[in-house]
Amino acid sequence: MKPLENDLFLKACRREPTERTPIWLMRQAGRYLPSYQTLRQRYDFLTLCRTPELAAEITLQPVEQLDVDAAILFSDILVVPEAMGLTVRIEDGLGPQIEHPVRTAADVARLVIPDPHEKLGYVLEAIRATLERLRGRVPLIGFAGAPWTLLAYMVEGSGTGDFRRARVFVREAPDVARALLEKIVHAVARFLRAQIEAGVHAVQLFDTWAGLLDPDSLTEFALAGVRRVIRELKAAGRDDVPILLFSRGTAAWMETLAETGADVLSLDWTCDLARARRQVGDRVALQGNLDPIALLASPDIVAREARRVLARFGPGSGHIFNLGHGVLPETPVENVRRLVDTVKRESPKYHVEDRAGTDL
Amino acid sequence: MKPLENDLFLKACRREPTERTPIWLMRQAGRYLPSYQTLRQRYDFLTLCRTPELAAEITLQPVEQLDVDAAILFSDILVVPEAMGLTVRIEDGLGPQIEHPVRTAADVARLVIPDPHEKLGYVLEAIRATLERLRGRVPLIGFAGAPWTLLAYMVEGSGTGDFRRARVFVREAPDVARALLEKIVHAVARFLRAQIEAGVHAVQLFDTWAGLLDPDSLTEFALAGVRRVIRELKAAGRDDVPILLFSRGTAAWMETLAETGADVLSLDWTCDLARARRQVGDRVALQGNLDPIALLASPDIVAREARRVLARFGPGSGHIFNLGHGVLPETPVENVRRLVDTVKRESPKYHVEDRAGTDL
Repeated sequence: MKPLENDLFLKACRREPTERTPIWLMRQAGRYLPSYQTLRQRYDFLTLCRTPELAAEITLQPVEQLDVDAAILFSDILVVPEAMGLTVRIEDGLGPQIEHPVRTAADVARLVIPDPHEKLGYVLEAIRATLERLRGRVPLIGFAGAPWTLLAYMVEGSGTGDFRRARVFVREAPDVARALLEKIVHAVARFLRAQIEAGVHAVQLFDTWAGLLDPDSLTEFALAGVRRVIRELKAAGRDDVPILLFSRGTAAWMETLAETGADVLSLDWTCDLARARRQVGDRVALQGNLDPIALLASPDIVAREARRVLARFGPGSGHIFNLGHGVLPETPVENVRRLVDTVKRESPKYHVEDRAGTDL
Repeated sequence: MKPLENDLFLKACRREPTERTPIWLMRQAGRYLPSYQTLRQRYDFLTLCRTPELAAEITLQPVEQLDVDAAILFSDILVVPEAMGLTVRIEDGLGPQIEHPVRTAADVARLVIPDPHEKLGYVLEAIRATLERLRGRVPLIGFAGAPWTLLAYMVEGSGTGDFRRARVFVREAPDVARALLEKIVHAVARFLRAQIEAGVHAVQLFDTWAGLLDPDSLTEFALAGVRRVIRELKAAGRDDVPILLFSRGTAAWMETLAETGADVLSLDWTCDLARARRQVGDRVALQGNLDPIALLASPDIVAREARRVLARFGPGSGHIFNLGHGVLPETPVENVRRLVDTVKRESPKYHVEDRAGTDL
């Protein structure tokens, strides 16, 4: 593979000096982009995920239209539960629905730990198609749902907001829940390993629903699940591929998150980036954390808030600019452009010492 | 007024020794109780709030049926926006709706800072009716929405979950938002002061939506709003009435919350009670924080989780047992009974030194 033209993102993941702060956005490929909407009118969501050429096309859109510093594969976290044997439907306005949610030991026993090449080949194909079209312009990020977040969907059957059934389940059937977590951990680790073999330059785990948990359940399910996936991945000997962890609603657990083995913590918008930086020290890089709601305001406010996030992290390396959650469908593309421009224009001043260091 | 028969709750608020941990539950008066449902079939929600005898009746129900250590007035946080001049409708299944939400400086100018005796007399009447029927058995807690949470509803117009309009508003019209916050602060402080004059033994501020905010907005709107209400209240010279603060989704801000002037911090279920205790030291008492979802599991699990919460706080005074959020409507009454019994039975062992201290 030819070397990357723009490797700012990967350098920042490794906390190496860069001349400016790299930026990409969670859900940068998606509904707010007119070019995505055009495709979406012709194909349903799952067809877009399952057709490598279309997934690659969508993955490329923000790179070409917004000039972000990384691409993230267009896919969905529920491809793993589906590959494990569940039937997932995604209906407009309703969100994902799982036909027979997991409730019993027998349900767990029926689930398989899929060979990704067999059951998730379309994702690996999409990675290869994307890499071909990217031609080394920017790195490609692969991803998976974190074990607890997948478990929550698999038990709940849909995104209910509070996932109360899943939260009762881990209390009433802890052994079944642990067996389920175990299978998910292996499924996710194998899937991410296959993504790395297919050529992604980094992988991100999304623990979107970690913040719903009480401390005991968080420790036993969310944190342990993430830690075990990362251990399996690192054991596979690809330490050169950064692992990013987005854990939402867990601002109070920064030190613990920094010890999961992740190379980068992706912070939601409620986190204080300056405090997080003090807390994690030089253990991990930080990604984030502009409130996605700010992108619904005027472009000048977007620019002001972007500057605030940069200032809050302050001088030095190890920051990847991103949102604190995904881009909202209602976001004006103009605002996203303004955000990317602002970060590119304003961030070099926070890297003066980085550049000096590089020159020496 | 005759002295209270049971003042465990007030002693715990002041971090004084008690022979066991007191317990009451947010939304202990409400939909999960069949006796409430019976009344609710005859009257709509706002009629129940506005009719002192009915509000007193509902407030007493959990005291009489569950033997909790404090009563909390049956009312709603939106009585303040209504008294300020907005029209609030509460429709079944839809939640509260505000007819003309606040959007402009002119909207703010039209709002009044109500004289509680004039505009909220029915709440003060309900307090007096409740106190009469309580006959000093347990303390009565009054309450109000915290300024940010009220502002969020007043701007959003309804409980949308993410309150995105309110979060855009504080960015696009910060001066208007500050003027609105100012009026709400005064309205809430006067209202709570009137509740104290009417005889409540403690007051709780509910900042249910603080956890949606980025650090800058949290500091400027949620934390500053709470701090100013508490300052106004304390300036009124009733330091003997404890002020409790429930701030949801802000586990990472424990030290800051402990410095708002509140006497008690009420923690949501995601907080680690042991860590919070270390963080706040002897500045405030702590209330909480069982996951309300645990009450949907079996009674034995309820008992186990209640014991865990007690153990997490550990020995000593300054803990009021509560949930991390309100009782869910689907909660079996049997489970609430089991919870109260468990806390009463299991907590004395954490107060051995308290008792020793009292005996000396």
